[in-house]
Amino acid sequence: MKQAIVARTDLGMGEGKLAAQVAHASLMAYEDASDDAIDAWKRGGQTKVVLGVAGADALSDLADQARRARLPHGLVTDAGRTQLDPGTQSAVAIGPAPVADVDAITGDLSLY
Amino acid sequence: MKQAIVARTDLGMGEGKLAAQVAHASLMAYEDASDDAIDAWKRGGQTKVVLGVAGADALSDLADQARRARLPHGLVTDAGRTQLDPGTQSAVAIGPAPVADVDAITGDLSLY
Repeated sequence: MKQAIVARTDLGMGEGKLAAQVAHASLMAYEDASDDAIDAWKRGGQTKVVLGVAGADALSDLADQARRARLPHGLVTDAGRTQLDPGTQSAVAIGPAPVADVDAITGDLSLY
Repeated sequence: MKQAIVARTDLGMGEGKLAAQVAHASLMAYEDASDDAIDAWKRGGQTKVVLGVAGADALSDLADQARRARLPHGLVTDAGRTQLDPGTQSAVAIGPAPVADVDAITGDLSLY
């Protein structure tokens, strides 16, 4: 089991801002997951990987793929109080879910 | 209500690694919080702030303060599979809790 969190590389986020967006996405997807998936993920060490993607379209496409695959996911829309414009989609988390299912969507992406 | 996540600035973590540690700490503290605290936090926009601190002692002191104040918190000990040595304490999250309670512990720290 793993959770992949994909954040946009094209927004010029500072590293603290990036970390907050990633944490937000991670929690949204966690809340979207079943108890069984969460338990299995934790038993395996709660693996998280943070990946990067350039652009809003690529990000929302990942969320669409996760939804179609019925994987737990969460797409962050920033409130825009700092750094980003209101409504900016900044990160998506996919999983916890089986590694192969997450990799089928995110496997071609690079580490952030 | 807010959650402060404090990460070490002295470990040379890459920004993806930092984001993963912050997400891990955030989730640990979330799981340590009451349903009422989580609900109130979400109603207020789920405010997160990412702060920095230099050194393991300063980090564990923050966790001690949160425990003594009976605030939900989570201290991340890295498994050491990438970048960090096994057992390295990398980040602590405090809250969701009332802003004044979190600020009493973290108010003097700088944004990461």
